[in-house]
Amino acid sequence: MMEASKRRGEDRDPPKVEARWGRRAWELLEAVRRRAPLVQCITNFVSMDLMANALLAAGASPAMVHSLSEIDDFTPRADAILINVGTLSDGWLPSMRAAATAATRAGCPWVLDPVAVSASDFRLEACLGLVGLRPAVIRGNPSEILGLSSACRIRDSKGADSSHESMDAVEAAKSLAQASGAIVAVSGAVDVITDGQQVVGANNGVAMMQKITATGCAVTALIAAFIAIDPPNTLEATACAFSIFGLAAELGMDMAKGPASLRMHMIDSLHGLDEHTVTSRVNISFIT
Amino acid sequence: MMEASKRRGEDRDPPKVEARWGRRAWELLEAVRRRAPLVQCITNFVSMDLMANALLAAGASPAMVHSLSEIDDFTPRADAILINVGTLSDGWLPSMRAAATAATRAGCPWVLDPVAVSASDFRLEACLGLVGLRPAVIRGNPSEILGLSSACRIRDSKGADSSHESMDAVEAAKSLAQASGAIVAVSGAVDVITDGQQVVGANNGVAMMQKITATGCAVTALIAAFIAIDPPNTLEATACAFSIFGLAAELGMDMAKGPASLRMHMIDSLHGLDEHTVTSRVNISFIT
Amino acid sequence: MMEASKRRGEDRDPPKVEARWGRRAWELLEAVRRRAPLVQCITNFVSMDLMANALLAAGASPAMVHSLSEIDDFTPRADAILINVGTLSDGWLPSMRAAATAATRAGCPWVLDPVAVSASDFRLEACLGLVGLRPAVIRGNPSEILGLSSACRIRDSKGADSSHESMDAVEAAKSLAQASGAIVAVSGAVDVITDGQQVVGANNGVAMMQKITATGCAVTALIAAFIAIDPPNTLEATACAFSIFGLAAELGMDMAKGPASLRMHMIDSLHGLDEHTVTSRVNISFIT
Repeated sequence: MMEASKRRGEDRDPPKVEARWGRRAWELLEAVRRRAPLVQCITNFVSMDLMANALLAAGASPAMVHSLSEIDDFTPRADAILINVGTLSDGWLPSMRAAATAATRAGCPWVLDPVAVSASDFRLEACLGLVGLRPAVIRGNPSEILGLSSACRIRDSKGADSSHESMDAVEAAKSLAQASGAIVAVSGAVDVITDGQQVVGANNGVAMMQKITATGCAVTALIAAFIAIDPPNTLEATACAFSIFGLAAELGMDMAKGPASLRMHMIDSLHGLDEHTVTSRVNISFIT
Repeated sequence: MMEASKRRGEDRDPPKVEARWGRRAWELLEAVRRRAPLVQCITNFVSMDLMANALLAAGASPAMVHSLSEIDDFTPRADAILINVGTLSDGWLPSMRAAATAATRAGCPWVLDPVAVSASDFRLEACLGLVGLRPAVIRGNPSEILGLSSACRIRDSKGADSSHESMDAVEAAKSLAQASGAIVAVSGAVDVITDGQQVVGANNGVAMMQKITATGCAVTALIAAFIAIDPPNTLEATACAFSIFGLAAELGMDMAKGPASLRMHMIDSLHGLDEHTVTSRVNISFIT
Repeated sequence: MMEASKRRGEDRDPPKVEARWGRRAWELLEAVRRRAPLVQCITNFVSMDLMANALLAAGASPAMVHSLSEIDDFTPRADAILINVGTLSDGWLPSMRAAATAATRAGCPWVLDPVAVSASDFRLEACLGLVGLRPAVIRGNPSEILGLSSACRIRDSKGADSSHESMDAVEAAKSLAQASGAIVAVSGAVDVITDGQQVVGANNGVAMMQKITATGCAVTALIAAFIAIDPPNTLEATACAFSIFGLAAELGMDMAKGPASLRMHMIDSLHGLDEHTVTSRVNISFIT
């Protein structure tokens, strides 16, 4: 893991560019800590613990509120919404739609995590319907973005894991961004973020994150917290959220002996990130 | 954190008083370990893992049973019930009502955790209805106790976090205790417990617990386990549960590097608490 | 704990027999890592996090998909199915039945975890119905296997904990295996696995696993991953899954200070298991 990080360090952008991104990532993290944006999460059962703890460690205020009976009262108070279809069911879909509609109406940014979108026709149609409710960001792995972008099933997909590399999905991501109006983000060895024109790469992170359930879900929630700070610059905030989370994983990896200790050290590191570490190690660059 | 603990130590009650509480806390913990009370938990999805592990570490026997189809058969076997509305929905509320009713009928103590009670009219009305079913203890943060006590919304509340200090909520807690007949407990830098007349403060704990999701939920479950041991002395058992959990967090804090490692060390410490540590460090005192 | 392990070592079978089992366990683990079987888990809310992380650490690909709307599309793609009734409700039971039926029809092995089967008539009847849908393996603690085998309630059972030793349940397990056609596995100090004729004992593990919620659930999911590799030899694969998980706990116990750190080190150890450790320490033997 450390070799990988070091190698990345050698390949990094010219100092001037990197410094700007690191500075921006620190400003956003600092603002999340100061303002504690309220992030309503309608998410899958597997991810709730890690997601809530990641948001708390970053300084945000998580609220797992999913009942249709509470959307009208609660959603307008939120600073951002996270909708994740990981354990989707007929009972939860109306809440997701209602929250997305309420958020868009109120000008509150919301993020869609189309987990395993190709798992079933039901899930694909649900995700396509949610895309139509104008998320600010769609974050998935390469298979999910390819699946959603082509709106057709990838029959050999394996649950929430991905069998494609993020760079393979760049064109699909651009196409989905253009069609939906959302920033589209693809997790991978390099996290790729696009508004349909520009493409940015976030280069922090370690491979072992894939061996911890719900790390993708957690970073999507972190994106929601970051875009709440500066909605007009969503692409930038999305890239910074990826690198902040990835940097926490890099620091955690120095202490980890496997995926479970990485999970712990990653959250500890996210909580303890300081200005010097963020500004010197955040590694983001324009790809196109 | 250690400074805070030490400072507390210097402010502590006269040795005799503290010794009595520490002795009582140890007796109750020792009885929980020996008798392994069966605690039925109808709780939110976020808290289930930490709650079950905290109960197991304390020596209790957790059972996450929530289906309406099982209340009649299962609830009468429980030694205490925990009802937590954190991820409340229309589907779960009838089970909560049925379990509370069955518990009260059977003389089994039950505890209400009115998480984010002011999040919606739906939630507030649900909690008010549950209060009417005679919980033995109501445990919340200051915002929740203020909200439930005044039965009106606090519009600026932030999810399950609290924007009030526990001492601010003392009068509201006394009022709620008198109106409901329950012991009312307010978590904070000092945990405040009242029967409407007497007010007791539990002074153990560390601030970083607020950065771990579901610690409040877990301590409410621990209260359920403790009051199962000695129902006639519920105020005392509630204060002891708070201090035992807070003491485990203090011990964990000595080893922690952030909120995720604190969570782990806190549960390890809860499991390993010994007589000397409990009797010498439990810090409870009468406020009025 | 180490004394216990050592004592077991002294009692072990002749080297030749043990070597065969250790070799087989390593082959299966190595195949799980290489082929990453997709395990669909319809499980309780408490266990989802640990189960997904245990499957990932072992090299399998977990998918928590439970909606009835997705069974037809998704279940035929799975390599094995895990059905766990820990937080059973009317809403989830039809999905469990549909997934079991689809799996059996497709020749896909599925495993039943009848958690707290005696908690209610509802749960017992649900489990009996699922047994009729031909699981490849049924894994429970002694109380659960006794309860399911006699199909009558054990009124003094305590939630998901067990008040019986696994050896007491051997005859019940054999009887249930003969009646159901499933391999029946009983967790305990010695994990006992039977096809109704042969009885195998898996001797790895540590007592503190009982102080961590969902370890039983997690090992059942691991059984699903292992039997997906070699369905004709389900008894063997089940025993190996038990010992692999127990061995990870033994290694974790060397570093643990309590149940929460054991949980972490156990998952790390499962991820890092190497050939020498597996072949030299897996301790399985025929009982009859």
